[in-house]
Parts: sequence; C-alpha cells; structure tokens
Amino acid sequence: MDGYKGMLIVISGPSGVGKSTICKSLIEKKLNNVELSVSATTRKQRISEVDGISYYFKSEHEFQEMIYRNEFLEYAKVYDNYYGTPKQHVIDKLVKGINVILEIDTHGAMQVKSNYEKGVFIFIMPPCFNILKTRILKRGTESKGDIKKRLESAFGEIHEIINYDYIVVNDDVDKAVDKIVCILNAESCRTNRYKIDFTEFKEEFYD
Amino acid sequence: MDGYKGMLIVISGPSGVGKSTICKSLIEKKLNNVELSVSATTRKQRISEVDGISYYFKSEHEFQEMIYRNEFLEYAKVYDNYYGTPKQHVIDKLVKGINVILEIDTHGAMQVKSNYEKGVFIFIMPPCFNILKTRILKRGTESKGDIKKRLESAFGEIHEIINYDYIVVNDDVDKAVDKIVCILNAESCRTNRYKIDFTEFKEEFYD
Repeated sequence: MDGYKGMLIVISGPSGVGKSTICKSLIEKKLNNVELSVSATTRKQRISEVDGISYYFKSEHEFQEMIYRNEFLEYAKVYDNYYGTPKQHVIDKLVKGINVILEIDTHGAMQVKSNYEKGVFIFIMPPCFNILKTRILKRGTESKGDIKKRLESAFGEIHEIINYDYIVVNDDVDKAVDKIVCILNAESCRTNRYKIDFTEFKEEFYD
Repeated sequence: MDGYKGMLIVISGPSGVGKSTICKSLIEKKLNNVELSVSATTRKQRISEVDGISYYFKSEHEFQEMIYRNEFLEYAKVYDNYYGTPKQHVIDKLVKGINVILEIDTHGAMQVKSNYEKGVFIFIMPPCFNILKTRILKRGTESKGDIKKRLESAFGEIHEIINYDYIVVNDDVDKAVDKIVCILNAESCRTNRYKIDFTEFKEEFYD
C-alpha cells in the first residue's frame, strides 16, 4: 500500500469528543476532495442508521469470514462488537486521488499505522475531561455499565495521542474543522508526498 | 535551543522565485503572530534598503567578529558576500511566542536544521524553471556574470528540497501565502509541539 494519489486520514478521539460531528461537517464543506470510509460492524443497527451509509452491518459470522479473507485494513473488538475498515473500498478511492477519512478508535488506528505510515493521524481532544463526561451522560443511549466503560476507555485513549501526528482540540466544531482543513492542505505540501521531475527543470535550464 | 513557545520558520527557494514577496505578504496579513528575522550582511546596501529593517549592514571585519563570538544562528558566503542570522534576536522572539521567519538560502537552512530540528522548513518552488530565468533576467540589477551565477545556483538549490518539510509552488502569490498560513496552523497542532497535563484529566476523571 504505497504511492497513492489520495491521502488516508485517520481521525480518533475519545467517545463523546465530537468526532462524528467534525467528520460530517468536513465532508459537507466539500473541500480537499474528502470522503468518509464506511466501516463494517457487528453492532446493532440504530433506528437512525442506514446500512451501507452509516455502516455495513454484518453478522458475527460474516465479519469473521472477512477477517479470514484478510479483507480489513484494520478491525477491532470494542465493547462487545466488531468494527472494521474494508480494505478494497479505501484503496479504490486513494487510487482515484480521493482523500479518505477513517473515523476509528486508537487500536484500529495503530493497525493502520503499521500498514501505512503515510497516513495522516489526527487525534481529537476535548478541551477538558468534564465536558466529555457530560456529553457521554447526555447521550442517554447506553446503560450505566456501558457509560462507565466508555468513560474509562476515553481516559485510556487520551494516553495514546503520542502515536498521532496532530492534536485538534474540539472547543468549537467550526474551528476544529478549519484546523483539519489546514492540516490536509499542509500535508499535501509535504516534501515526501511530492514527485519532482528534475529532468524537466534541467532541460529548461540548458535551453 | 529548545522548548520555545514560538516556531522558527525557515523559507528558502531559488533566487527569483518570489520568496521576499511571499514573506512580505505573510507579515502584512498579521496572522499566526509572525515576524521576519532581520539578517546581517556585508553586501552593498541598495538605494531602496534601510539599515536595521532590510538588513543589518556590516563591514567584513564586523561580520568576522560576530562569527568569532558565535553570534550567528547560521551564516554563509553567497557569491562574494556574507549573510547571517543574529542568534539572540531570534531567541528573544521565540521566547515571547512570536513565530520567526528566516528567509535564507539552502546552506544557511541546513545549518539551522542541525541546530534546531523543531524548525519548520519550507521550500518555495517555481512552477517551471523558465519563469525563474525570466524573473532573474528582468530584475536587471546584476551583471551578466552575476545572472549566470544566480541561474546555476537556483538550479542547484532545487536539488536540496529533499531536506525541507514542505514544498510550496509559487504559481500565485496569494495562494502560496495561504498555503504557508495553513502550514503554520497545522504545525501548531503537531503532537510534538504539545505539552499535555494528564494530571488535570485524571483529577477530573475521578471527580
């Protein structure tokens, strides 16, 4: 996996930090030619979700088959469910020059990193931990046990930031999105993404 | 030299590529808290230039004394003149959180890099070499010999880009400046520039 025209952008951050809102807004801006990767999951479909758009909803058996066929760029068991990124969908987009966003947890992100160092790894941070607690509690879609798991996981994940290239503090969604747009513009200027044809310059020089 | 609040931004590129115009426009935008570092030089003052603003104009003897006292962050002999960046001026600004721009040649840039890896190294490229030739010829302030030297040097410098973090193609000054603004915004989000207080998060978590 190397030399694609598009960039692979990995966005992680603790549960409740606002990753999905940021990613949605980033896509809606239609800048930087970005598209969101659709994950496969074994978790229960929520009423508001559409199969193939929100996630590819899979049975545990189907998911295990995909693992066996090495069809995931990364996968992880989070709480009691599997989540994974189907590899081929991502590659197809990168080849076309589309910048693909993966909104995944830190375990998945590190799997991607070990396979594809050229990825851009962004960690979304809460301005403070209390805001995160409030957001998770307010969501109200989970049991008390799930909430406790989420809070502990959120605290643990913040320690993983050292493995990311960029930290974006989400004190304001628009500002956070603007920062990510800047990161993508800057990354497209990075020397290691350029292929320069010195021959062309040489021909012009001796012309 | 480490741990300053401000960023040290090194901008290089072949003669005639438009570095000065870009830097001037960047300063005028008053974004990113940037200031241009003023170099010392032994070259002859041009009519339009002001001592202490354009450059610190020095005699060769004065310049040699400064080298001897290790007062330069970098210095180089380019054509027949010395150019150098007085160290203390830069440090004073970085400590205050000012982002300092050094507009210097590739030799100087590599000296800075060996002293201060945390610098942001940006190389300005022409969209094609012919444009560079035309710009240098149009300038008309130098002799034929000087022009030849500049052209050869420009061609040589383009090979140094591999040592820079970013390449900004100057096909349009405003766009080039916007890209640099983005690079600075992105750099300020880089994980290695952050100091995170985990204790604060921990206290909130167990609150």
